[in-house]
Amino acid sequence: MKNFNYKNGTKLIFGKDTELKIGKEIKKYSNKILLHYGGGSIKTTGLYEKIVNSLNEEGIEFIELSGVKPNPRVSLVRKGINICRDNNLDFILAVGGGSVIDSAKAIAAGVNYSKDVWDLFMDTPINHKCLNLATILTIPAAGSETSSGTVITNEEGWYKKSTGHPTLRPIFSIMNPELTFTLSKYQTACGIADMLAHVMERYFTNEPNVDLTDRLCEATMKSIIDNGLRVINNLNDYNSRAEIMLSGMIAHNDSLSMGRIGDWASHDIEHELSGIYDIPHGAGLAIIFPAWMKYVYKHDINRFAQFANRVFNIDINLNNPEETVLLGIKKLEDFFKELGLKTTLKEININNEHFSEMAKKLVELNGHVGNFVEIKYEDAIEIYKLAL
Amino acid sequence: MKNFNYKNGTKLIFGKDTELKIGKEIKKYSNKILLHYGGGSIKTTGLYEKIVNSLNEEGIEFIELSGVKPNPRVSLVRKGINICRDNNLDFILAVGGGSVIDSAKAIAAGVNYSKDVWDLFMDTPINHKCLNLATILTIPAAGSETSSGTVITNEEGWYKKSTGHPTLRPIFSIMNPELTFTLSKYQTACGIADMLAHVMERYFTNEPNVDLTDRLCEATMKSIIDNGLRVINNLNDYNSRAEIMLSGMIAHNDSLSMGRIGDWASHDIEHELSGIYDIPHGAGLAIIFPAWMKYVYKHDINRFAQFANRVFNIDINLNNPEETVLLGIKKLEDFFKELGLKTTLKEININNEHFSEMAKKLVELNGHVGNFVEIKYEDAIEIYKLAL
Repeated sequence: MKNFNYKNGTKLIFGKDTELKIGKEIKKYSNKILLHYGGGSIKTTGLYEKIVNSLNEEGIEFIELSGVKPNPRVSLVRKGINICRDNNLDFILAVGGGSVIDSAKAIAAGVNYSKDVWDLFMDTPINHKCLNLATILTIPAAGSETSSGTVITNEEGWYKKSTGHPTLRPIFSIMNPELTFTLSKYQTACGIADMLAHVMERYFTNEPNVDLTDRLCEATMKSIIDNGLRVINNLNDYNSRAEIMLSGMIAHNDSLSMGRIGDWASHDIEHELSGIYDIPHGAGLAIIFPAWMKYVYKHDINRFAQFANRVFNIDINLNNPEETVLLGIKKLEDFFKELGLKTTLKEININNEHFSEMAKKLVELNGHVGNFVEIKYEDAIEIYKLAL
Repeated sequence: MKNFNYKNGTKLIFGKDTELKIGKEIKKYSNKILLHYGGGSIKTTGLYEKIVNSLNEEGIEFIELSGVKPNPRVSLVRKGINICRDNNLDFILAVGGGSVIDSAKAIAAGVNYSKDVWDLFMDTPINHKCLNLATILTIPAAGSETSSGTVITNEEGWYKKSTGHPTLRPIFSIMNPELTFTLSKYQTACGIADMLAHVMERYFTNEPNVDLTDRLCEATMKSIIDNGLRVINNLNDYNSRAEIMLSGMIAHNDSLSMGRIGDWASHDIEHELSGIYDIPHGAGLAIIFPAWMKYVYKHDINRFAQFANRVFNIDINLNNPEETVLLGIKKLEDFFKELGLKTTLKEININNEHFSEMAKKLVELNGHVGNFVEIKYEDAIEIYKLAL
């Protein structure tokens, strides 16, 4: 186990009707906020009205910035930064999923940075004060509701990059599983794939002697898989919606990273894919993660066999542990298929046309991605091919 | 799953040599502190010197208050409160295990309370500002390093009572597993029993649909059991010491309580025992918890069978799940015995002499203890008898 520091002070406000507390909670920090959201869905579901009423009751002024798209764009972030500066807003409320929250974090990071915010996603570290932000989560997936990171897409060249800072963790996050009932089966499935991938990225580590966090990862993965299948067959089931919402948070609040270094190559490899093709991140991960596993499993057969055994209850074949490993990967693909996701690029009409361009972008900053196994240009090409 | 709020902002600083950072970390908050510890063991191990050097390097003044005993006493807490008031100390550094940290929390809670601090352990809620505190943990057991609670013994009548407040969570906790190498086999075993009990108290709940937290509890219990046996056979093994230290924190940082209500009767029943007999809390729990389980398991056979199956890998006998339950309880007793602990009162020379007195004190405040099953006077007598 490695030495580590850990702090996550985001207050969770979890359960039915918790969105009605939004005004009272914000009032502790601010009287004038940016209300940031995506399309119009929060208006059709009635959530928008509840929020506005609660803010009005507490006398909190707000300026709206809607229009966040999946794979949120730096152009809208720049717009949000200007609104905050021009109106002296000191708090951002993000209502939505990971894209809206990530966009809000980028705005929070950019307001007090004197140059262009995209610098912070390239190589300029954040060492200035970020604005406070809070969330009302409507899509469990990205884990951005308690995480310190944000991923933004730059339309000029379709670069998708991430940055992070401890002060970008939301002050509080309101999580009402009922707000997720309106997610379609496909949106729900993409979210489940994303949160499972967050745990797997942490699970595949070279750090020895990480027994407790291994087991906590396995517990979270099992719960995501069991409740994922339940919710996909009954989109209005509060209990499995609640388990999935809680799992998505645990998967990415960094408690599962204590004392270990995760891999994150699959995330980076997928970011290039969804950066170019504009597919949901979770849908891309369901294709890329199994391909990455097939490419790297020989690096640590034991860890992959443990994954198959403890997460998918596959008996370990001690005479041929590779068989166990491959069964585990197949079970993972089967799970994604049961969710209704595709597990090959062909099925979503993507061919090898941009492989070289994606792999080039992937490694242009550091020459490789991944910590468990270093993935260079040639490796990335092979993984994309395995995903075909 | 119940609605819940959760926030735990304690910063963990975990790993080798982390105690050397103490001066720098405190400097962010205070220049004049109370240094609170137990007997002289931190002097013989060299830890005291390292702390003093680090505080001196940063120019932090400190006043010492040592002498905390297991089952920490309110008399010393009162002394600490006076020292803080007389010298305008605004920060407490607790160096030790749960007793020292709990004593520090009680001081932190009492300094700005105008009446006697014991009120806060009876029925007066804490609604005033508590002092900041931090810890250097040397005994993994009580989980007090990130928890919001404190348990104090009043020598006048040997009452042992608890209180808590979110602001009593330490600002940061330094956790270096190497500092636990000097714990004896018995001290180590008592700590392991205590942390396992913290998870079991949370596990036995009447709340349905708590799949993720069930699994996280099971993961933590398995890790405590596996690494507990490892460490007890090799007291200087960094890896298992680290797993145990991390497990003790997770067991009581309240993340395993999200959306569920724990039981806590066994803790209360044991507190009466160690309040009178001055035995280590963990040693008492190894006796009381199995007795409590035997008394209440019929309340929810399925939950106890799940415990046996998932924690101790016992196949569920669907035709006779009670058999599975009893095997699980036996396995738990076997585990405590393997740690070198006793599992009956007789073995530690306690007879039924004070059963009536303990049971009476136990229920005098509310008429009962426990949430999973309400334990009244008569029930407590039966549980003490089962523990004989």
